[in-house]
Amino acid sequence: MTDMSLAPGSTLGIVGGGQLGRMIALAAANYGLKVHVYAPDAASPAFDVAAETTCAAYDDAEALARFAASVDAVTYEFENIPRETADLLARHAPLRPSADALSTTQDRLSEKSFINGLGIATAPFRQVDTPDDLARALEAIGLPAVLKTRRFGYDGKGQRIIRTAEEGDRNAIFAEFGGAPLILEGFVPFEREVSVVAARSPDGSFAAFDLCENEHRDHILALTRVPAPNLSEETARIAVEIARRIAEALDYVGILAVEMFLVRDEAGERLIVNEIAPRVHNSGHWTIEGAVTSQFAQHVRAVCGWPLGDASRVAGASVEMRNLIGDDIDAWQALLAESGAHLHLYGKGDARPGRKMGHVTRVIPAS
Amino acid sequence: MTDMSLAPGSTLGIVGGGQLGRMIALAAANYGLKVHVYAPDAASPAFDVAAETTCAAYDDAEALARFAASVDAVTYEFENIPRETADLLARHAPLRPSADALSTTQDRLSEKSFINGLGIATAPFRQVDTPDDLARALEAIGLPAVLKTRRFGYDGKGQRIIRTAEEGDRNAIFAEFGGAPLILEGFVPFEREVSVVAARSPDGSFAAFDLCENEHRDHILALTRVPAPNLSEETARIAVEIARRIAEALDYVGILAVEMFLVRDEAGERLIVNEIAPRVHNSGHWTIEGAVTSQFAQHVRAVCGWPLGDASRVAGASVEMRNLIGDDIDAWQALLAESGAHLHLYGKGDARPGRKMGHVTRVIPAS
Repeated sequence: MTDMSLAPGSTLGIVGGGQLGRMIALAAANYGLKVHVYAPDAASPAFDVAAETTCAAYDDAEALARFAASVDAVTYEFENIPRETADLLARHAPLRPSADALSTTQDRLSEKSFINGLGIATAPFRQVDTPDDLARALEAIGLPAVLKTRRFGYDGKGQRIIRTAEEGDRNAIFAEFGGAPLILEGFVPFEREVSVVAARSPDGSFAAFDLCENEHRDHILALTRVPAPNLSEETARIAVEIARRIAEALDYVGILAVEMFLVRDEAGERLIVNEIAPRVHNSGHWTIEGAVTSQFAQHVRAVCGWPLGDASRVAGASVEMRNLIGDDIDAWQALLAESGAHLHLYGKGDARPGRKMGHVTRVIPAS
Repeated sequence: MTDMSLAPGSTLGIVGGGQLGRMIALAAANYGLKVHVYAPDAASPAFDVAAETTCAAYDDAEALARFAASVDAVTYEFENIPRETADLLARHAPLRPSADALSTTQDRLSEKSFINGLGIATAPFRQVDTPDDLARALEAIGLPAVLKTRRFGYDGKGQRIIRTAEEGDRNAIFAEFGGAPLILEGFVPFEREVSVVAARSPDGSFAAFDLCENEHRDHILALTRVPAPNLSEETARIAVEIARRIAEALDYVGILAVEMFLVRDEAGERLIVNEIAPRVHNSGHWTIEGAVTSQFAQHVRAVCGWPLGDASRVAGASVEMRNLIGDDIDAWQALLAESGAHLHLYGKGDARPGRKMGHVTRVIPAS
């Protein structure tokens, strides 16, 4: 325990009002904390479980300052907060994770450069600021490749695969992105995606949840399985080691997720880091029932400067988490009736296609 | 599913703003419900996790009507709500448990008469409305005996043991209670106290958690152990059967707890019902980590008219729940650092002696 730690009864500020903020707020309430949620949308699900709320834009300097001054620490539930906003918040309260960790990971170019700088593999990439850059990058990287915005992308938004040289001209493709800074990434022939969700404290303690395997549908996480099957113990160990090195290099505080591609070729299994999420992560939702400490409780512990909890999986069980996307939520009654299915709904009004409405976790005891 | 069931996105009204209301609210939020808490104290812990709050007295007819009209169902976290308040609420929204269940169980005299009417044993008792009643009751029941207020008692408040015939005169003892309606109860020479926490749905489904053993200190629950050790399976079965018969006779909806004394004499083990709590109960807090479905989630399922969840204990574990009372909370840092200890704090500001500030649950896996 350091003087950077919060006492029970303190107020935790959360920037962002979606389901991740809501679940952080629920975990914080369990530890006797008050929560103040800052979000621009009046219909934010996290507002419904917060003691205090501020509904204002992410560039409203006055509202941000008032918010940060009223809380004992600030954390955030998503990475698309402008650097200036993070700096402003940090002037009034401890910001965890830090503005530096946020800005390194919210830009795909700085993120991949940082990861490579640690000697950890990523897909090959090139910065693309002009149509000419794009032509040169395609030549260097080859096809297929993926052109992405450097910032503000999520769930497949802000990206486009280029499969063949005939696919329209460089100027037209470049123009599709409206002049946003871009990055071209080589296509990794991966077998599957895995992720490590882990926590680090202000005192440097580190605790990782078990490596999990993720399946996406339409670029949105559909299913997480833990433990990741058919994977060597050595690969699982390396994955956690990668997450630890990243967390240490960022002097990270809180939960972070590292998404990785598992590549299997004649040389064996290897891992390539896809991206870092500086926040609690959808692929960690299984921990609510499947681990001794949930990722949300662990995040609260870390940002409060408290001892990290036990991150082990419950008693040898295997765990499966499925997202309920759009009208998947119509199955809520059947899921409530299914023995051992743990249903979580996020309190969102409108089940639009592609919208994450809830999730369901099944814990399969060791047989 | 019946037309008495609530849809996700509905609003659940909770009367009472203490830790029980707070934990019901957290469970409701997990199912995507909005919560509206009604309580008279502005510092109510449940207010901090509610989408809507009403701070008003329990006899404020206008505020009660407005509250109940704004929600889809009303439940409560404690039984000391006037019958008139319950009736008023029930005119505007489904009240679960019902006003009848509440009024039967909130008065020790009607409660014990009701239980005896089912052929279930209680301590012997007599109604005491005058000093003469008290003299007659003492003669009938013998010493020692316990004189209690019929209503509004909790945690040992509103009761007095009479051990010897010399102990002051009847008029003086009667006067101590200020003219409140009283009940004299015979003293049960019990080995220990056990309780059944169980749920019943509007459709009559019933699910009980495992029988637990409770230890009190200064009349306040200190420790709950599950399963209750050194008890025959037959006694555990009878305990659940008693809870089921009580729930059915009350046409009960929600979680109820039945506290029982275990008496062991030459005739063997037998159970005597001490009291019924028409609400989630302190002796059910272990279910948050120790059962597949927590009592709070189960209560929400029942009052929403949803299928009850699996009430079994997790994978053969034994579970221990300790209350943190008054300055017990000072150990919060050590408890956070203890592997496998699940700490819950209620967000109360002032750790007065005797005040329930939180609890800690330890799940000991089957060895």
